[in-house]
Amino acid sequence: MSAGKPDTAEPLNLGSLAAPDGRFRAVEGGGAASAAGFRAAGIHAGFRRDPSRLDLGLVVSDTPAACAGVFTRNVFCAAPVIVDREHLGGCGYGTARALLVNSGTANAATGPRGLEDAYRMAALVAEGLGCPESEVMVASTGVIGVHLPMERFDTGVPQVIAALSDRGGADAARAIMTTDTHPKEAAVCFDGDSVGYPGCTFTVGGMAKGSGMIMPDMATMIACITTDAPVAAPDLHRALRATADCTFNKVTVDSDTSTNDTCILFANGAAAPGAQPFAPDGPAMQAFRQALLQVCTTLARAMAADGEGATKLVTVRVAGAASEADADAAARTIANSPLVKTAIFGHDANWGRIAAAAGRSGAAFDQGDVSIDIMGIPVCRGGLPVPFSEEEALRRFERPEIELDVHLGAGNHATAVFTCDFTHDYITINGDYRT
Amino acid sequence: MSAGKPDTAEPLNLGSLAAPDGRFRAVEGGGAASAAGFRAAGIHAGFRRDPSRLDLGLVVSDTPAACAGVFTRNVFCAAPVIVDREHLGGCGYGTARALLVNSGTANAATGPRGLEDAYRMAALVAEGLGCPESEVMVASTGVIGVHLPMERFDTGVPQVIAALSDRGGADAARAIMTTDTHPKEAAVCFDGDSVGYPGCTFTVGGMAKGSGMIMPDMATMIACITTDAPVAAPDLHRALRATADCTFNKVTVDSDTSTNDTCILFANGAAAPGAQPFAPDGPAMQAFRQALLQVCTTLARAMAADGEGATKLVTVRVAGAASEADADAAARTIANSPLVKTAIFGHDANWGRIAAAAGRSGAAFDQGDVSIDIMGIPVCRGGLPVPFSEEEALRRFERPEIELDVHLGAGNHATAVFTCDFTHDYITINGDYRT
Repeated sequence: MSAGKPDTAEPLNLGSLAAPDGRFRAVEGGGAASAAGFRAAGIHAGFRRDPSRLDLGLVVSDTPAACAGVFTRNVFCAAPVIVDREHLGGCGYGTARALLVNSGTANAATGPRGLEDAYRMAALVAEGLGCPESEVMVASTGVIGVHLPMERFDTGVPQVIAALSDRGGADAARAIMTTDTHPKEAAVCFDGDSVGYPGCTFTVGGMAKGSGMIMPDMATMIACITTDAPVAAPDLHRALRATADCTFNKVTVDSDTSTNDTCILFANGAAAPGAQPFAPDGPAMQAFRQALLQVCTTLARAMAADGEGATKLVTVRVAGAASEADADAAARTIANSPLVKTAIFGHDANWGRIAAAAGRSGAAFDQGDVSIDIMGIPVCRGGLPVPFSEEEALRRFERPEIELDVHLGAGNHATAVFTCDFTHDYITINGDYRT
Repeated sequence: MSAGKPDTAEPLNLGSLAAPDGRFRAVEGGGAASAAGFRAAGIHAGFRRDPSRLDLGLVVSDTPAACAGVFTRNVFCAAPVIVDREHLGGCGYGTARALLVNSGTANAATGPRGLEDAYRMAALVAEGLGCPESEVMVASTGVIGVHLPMERFDTGVPQVIAALSDRGGADAARAIMTTDTHPKEAAVCFDGDSVGYPGCTFTVGGMAKGSGMIMPDMATMIACITTDAPVAAPDLHRALRATADCTFNKVTVDSDTSTNDTCILFANGAAAPGAQPFAPDGPAMQAFRQALLQVCTTLARAMAADGEGATKLVTVRVAGAASEADADAAARTIANSPLVKTAIFGHDANWGRIAAAAGRSGAAFDQGDVSIDIMGIPVCRGGLPVPFSEEEALRRFERPEIELDVHLGAGNHATAVFTCDFTHDYITINGDYRT
């Protein structure tokens, strides 16, 4: 037992999973249209009553791009998810040009008519762009069990196509919001010189939305990532799945998994025209995966921080677990515990609730080996209370980001899960969302 | 597919799991001391600052009684749970006289000193009653990670023993409360005439507390049930486990499992002195199990209705599941969904959230086979919306008890789970419980 068990009351410092790397530069104000050869737009098409709210977003690659998707595993999956899976040929990757997203109505629990509507969304975009329907991905987000007002697409799709621009990422990010309080975008770039593509600069950018009904799998309701790097579709899919597992799938706002979760990644190679695709295990691919991780981590943290009613971004790090599954179970159970989340809202360093959540998570450990820190303050060692300054804890609770570190003393596996606190506003938002 | 699938928009009427039975009579004002040969008391011993709050409860059988216990499976189990398991010889049943419960401090995450304290609680009662220490069960409920103020027991235990009375059940039920807003007691009796014990009347009574940090296994934080029926300890244990599984273990307030959950059942045979114990499969045992089910169902429903901040008792019934595990997973996921619970608080017949929760529960079904009713109003058939009167739904949401019925159309297994709505008061209560 007690592998690597910390036995002093020094802070645990379990560290971050996504350390910054000097090779990657953030693209100021970057998003889904930052990569070369991509354009985006967001307009008000009438899905929402308020004419100032954008509600139809489109991201387009100028040329056919490698495309990969990961989707909700909810049995009640929405019509657009079914259509996207079909357009990607069932394997999760293929070739595509565009992603169209409406907000306001989810097109979930809508039966055969819902499916027809989702096909029609793709057909309208395909017609406007002059590409096959199968090269158009679609997504919808909003209320479940209501049919889409299809006439809004008839007028809206030509408008949103006309509005496409390489500076349209911000509007697209706004158009896909539901209860989100602000748009979520990120982009980074890296040079190709040291990875076999001299003179090239590659960009990975994206947008996401998601605030409630958020838990893996998939955490995000909708995310769209684009890159101008030349990546073959199967490699793109592998990279997307691995990255989603440690970013979007580590976000939990309220333990509810959406019916519509969709993450689409496009790679059009526009930054290195005519170049060979990145070798699957070469340095360029490694750099691309790192850039993708940074973009997805930024978007995932933004989703957790913007959880419905949230006042804090909470990172739950679990180390010393006997297996990866145990680490995940413990971190996720702590992150989903309403008692832990309300304690954080109440600025209460109530570590007993963290211990109790770990204890019921199914993870194997001995309570006498457990250490817990709250924002770097040791509060529990060897399963027992450690005296700490309540004033110092209250002071640290003023921070916008709260870190909980738990060491189970049972092995060498670790993970981090992103969540938020549980507040009155969550109840208010969800107590009358539909009315 | 679609085993027994309802295909009309008639209400589902999945029915209640615990139908009333004319053979059993409720005991007015009954509780843990209603059965013959039991006494109880509750006093203020100083675990809480407010002198008007009772905080030390005791239930005693006048003679050694068969005793069975079921306990939390949380790894962070509390010291009293460890002591009780030991006193019951590791098999969960044995002989005992008494259960001592303090509120205010949970004696969880307290290490070797906590264990010593729990042994000391039992020793003090054993001394006062003149019985072996191993015949005393102990329980604690309250804040985790704080040591018990043992001097309160030195003075309190003799006082609570002196206060024992056959009308003391109500005080004991008050003494074990934490955030509960009212005490929870129930008792029923049945005649022995038709089950081979002519002239005897058997009583089953009990008390429970539990309001937050409530989810199986065990649902209740503390429950004590007593009976004057002659039941052998192994049979008592079997009956308790089976009953707990469909009552206390079907309650979920916030998906959090306590470190201290304890349910103790005593049977002293005082209603039929010198009689043989009930035969394991005979009619008397069947009647006893039915009475036990009624008492535990009443207490379990009372706990769900008194969930922290709750305004509604919510019963989630799932039928048409492919297995019992599927029925339980679907019902529990719906009952724990913050989105479902806030919708009920908001009087919003938002069945899409119910469907989405069922869909992510892991239960196997086809979304096209699902039917959903909210308070008897069909809202979804074949996975699709059914038009319904929002006014009628709003009217029915005024009721104190809300029933959700979901038919998965995938088999013949059914279950019911008890929960409550999720309100501002839950956030308020748990946002500053410790301060």
